[in-house]
Amino acid sequence: MNPILAVGSVAFDSVKTPFGEVSRVVGGAATYFSVAASFFADVRLVAVVGTDFSPHLARVFGNRRIDLSGLQQLPGETFRWKGEYGFDLDSRETIYTHLNVFEQFQPVIPEAYRDSPFVFLGNIHPALQLEVLNQVRGPRLVGADTMNYWIERTPDALRQVLSRVDVLLINDSEARELAGEANLVKAARVIQAMGPRTLVIKRGEHGVLMTRPEGGFFAAPAMPLEEVFDPTGAGDTFAGGFMGYLASCDVVTDATLVRAIIYGSTLASFAVEDFSVDRLLRLTPDEIGARFAGFKTLTHFDLV
Amino acid sequence: MNPILAVGSVAFDSVKTPFGEVSRVVGGAATYFSVAASFFADVRLVAVVGTDFSPHLARVFGNRRIDLSGLQQLPGETFRWKGEYGFDLDSRETIYTHLNVFEQFQPVIPEAYRDSPFVFLGNIHPALQLEVLNQVRGPRLVGADTMNYWIERTPDALRQVLSRVDVLLINDSEARELAGEANLVKAARVIQAMGPRTLVIKRGEHGVLMTRPEGGFFAAPAMPLEEVFDPTGAGDTFAGGFMGYLASCDVVTDATLVRAIIYGSTLASFAVEDFSVDRLLRLTPDEIGARFAGFKTLTHFDLV
Repeated sequence: MNPILAVGSVAFDSVKTPFGEVSRVVGGAATYFSVAASFFADVRLVAVVGTDFSPHLARVFGNRRIDLSGLQQLPGETFRWKGEYGFDLDSRETIYTHLNVFEQFQPVIPEAYRDSPFVFLGNIHPALQLEVLNQVRGPRLVGADTMNYWIERTPDALRQVLSRVDVLLINDSEARELAGEANLVKAARVIQAMGPRTLVIKRGEHGVLMTRPEGGFFAAPAMPLEEVFDPTGAGDTFAGGFMGYLASCDVVTDATLVRAIIYGSTLASFAVEDFSVDRLLRLTPDEIGARFAGFKTLTHFDLV
Repeated sequence: MNPILAVGSVAFDSVKTPFGEVSRVVGGAATYFSVAASFFADVRLVAVVGTDFSPHLARVFGNRRIDLSGLQQLPGETFRWKGEYGFDLDSRETIYTHLNVFEQFQPVIPEAYRDSPFVFLGNIHPALQLEVLNQVRGPRLVGADTMNYWIERTPDALRQVLSRVDVLLINDSEARELAGEANLVKAARVIQAMGPRTLVIKRGEHGVLMTRPEGGFFAAPAMPLEEVFDPTGAGDTFAGGFMGYLASCDVVTDATLVRAIIYGSTLASFAVEDFSVDRLLRLTPDEIGARFAGFKTLTHFDLV
């Protein structure tokens, strides 16, 4: 069993979708990641919250395989984000981003975490991702996320991070932008040359594409869902299920990577069924197992 | 073995993609459909061309399982279309559409074709699709395509067609528009209530989603390709591979429908590798078999 050190944002989100509106609910990439990963592995969360987050700590992270000794609590307000989705949930507009205490975030990795065999660098400033990497000792596998903002504004720091990353998880438009190449097959090769031996390209409602150790790709569709309530956090939940399952395996092989993609897709398919992490908080291992099997029914065929 | 009666357009296309430009090459939905389907089944093509098409007849349709006795040749020019693709091949602009002889197209089904067990109604005016259905006698399976133009302008005629269709193949935005519903799972149910027991939703580079006889969905990604030269005709080629394989089976079952999706995806993945039907014209059964197997590698995983 390999504990995962997870670094990223914990936030309060306000979200409007065609199906409803919520204000100041628990969000943040590291929140979705940690709750999802904790179904499979021990998670060591390094993040920052304000004093206003206290009432939610036990409800969201309690009674799970999530260690909070690296969670900093600073005087002030927690990171806040507000977003609004279009009618088909495909487009999203950010109404505001208030960094609040996140502005002073300096990831300090507790001594007990520094030998974590699995490390996940959430979508934060590449300079902070580097600080994390400089504090850990010989991790077996480093996963990372990033976004167009850092690709455009801090390309040099991002390149330094990528040279030390094993698995990069980004969305398709980001992959194209990072590689400067519209064709995803070619873009994948360009990005792999930057460092990550495995690239996981997230395509939202269209599923995921992953490069494989021996060459070629694995592709998984998203589960067709009748109720997509709120897509917020789907990608982070995917990353949590993916990294969590990998960390639960003895070795990382083609077969475990491929199953990790399906576990990530499974967790993400639940996350979007409700606002915030609410669906994940009431999720059971049996439900995970049933939907994982459902992906097989969804995609498998016989040659004859 | 079930011959397929295929009705639709044969055209000259002029196409500009980021990778090149061609002028007045052979195109048209029924062309792509027929060539693709002919790898699996006998095709009876009902369409119209001008006298200017003569030099291409033997090269494109000759030495294939394509019967041309229903192909009308009228004095005048063949249907012409010109389109231009954006840098990522995702967006397409129609520069012009000249119907030419297609404007007078009245599908006359030769007596020898009227008992065709499989019928495919290409994307033409629903009134013409109805005329075809009124001339055939008890087909075993009717497949059809349509587009937003008919959904918006001739909804009543389209509804009459749909009530007599077994398999509807349309793209995802058309499915949403036809159903008046953004969620694809719900949209599928709405469209099935209009008639088609099987709905095949084409998502371009993101693959295909099909409703299944016993409920639920089958999903297939598109094959990740390094060279997507020209997406024109990919959907029509998919339909040809899909219908062609189904027609080659004794019975239409969940297993054959699912394999038909993969054969359709296989043929479409070749079609985009070159302009016009050029790649299909030099395609071999061995190449089809190898890429079909490649789809299994691309998507299959083990439960443990």
